[in-house]
Amino acid sequence: MKNIFADIPGQLPEELFTTLLQHKNLKIERIVSRGHANADDQWYDQEHDEWVLLVQGEAILELAEQRQLIKLQAGDYLLIPTGCKHRVEWTRPEIDNIWLAIHF
Amino acid sequence: MKNIFADIPGQLPEELFTTLLQHKNLKIERIVSRGHANADDQWYDQEHDEWVLLVQGEAILELAEQRQLIKLQAGDYLLIPTGCKHRVEWTRPEIDNIWLAIHF
Repeated sequence: MKNIFADIPGQLPEELFTTLLQHKNLKIERIVSRGHANADDQWYDQEHDEWVLLVQGEAILELAEQRQLIKLQAGDYLLIPTGCKHRVEWTRPEIDNIWLAIHF
Repeated sequence: MKNIFADIPGQLPEELFTTLLQHKNLKIERIVSRGHANADDQWYDQEHDEWVLLVQGEAILELAEQRQLIKLQAGDYLLIPTGCKHRVEWTRPEIDNIWLAIHF
């Protein structure tokens, strides 16, 4: 049995991306951010939809066109549609903030 | 912002199924089980793959062909392939056991 809270290294110099399932156009991914964030000009601009659940921790996302900051608590989820430029503004330091991202 | 731990009624006479996202062949669903389980002869037999994450709580799944009981803790996830008959044998009473099910 695999666990989404397991297999996280003690040292995490960069965000950790782990593909949990890949099937045709579907990818289920775990992302662990331990205080990591994107640079001010580093945007994700994807050609597919992404549904994101913050399983654990706290984070702030920025959406480019809306010029909107979105604070996420554990359990919060949202759809990031194709072409919706976004970046991670902040994640809580010193804990493992765990995202589940469904790319489809 | 929607939250996977929110909008759970105080009374839960049956399991609660909530579609969080539906897009073509993809359905993202929350299931809340408060001690609920399937009857001994009540099997799910699906014509699509399902990826399941137990976000919160404890549960036991039964897989028919393998005659296998699988104990799940919070964070455990597994793939239930097309045609893999399964049922929920047990969920922890008096708490909200929360599943995230990705049907694809």
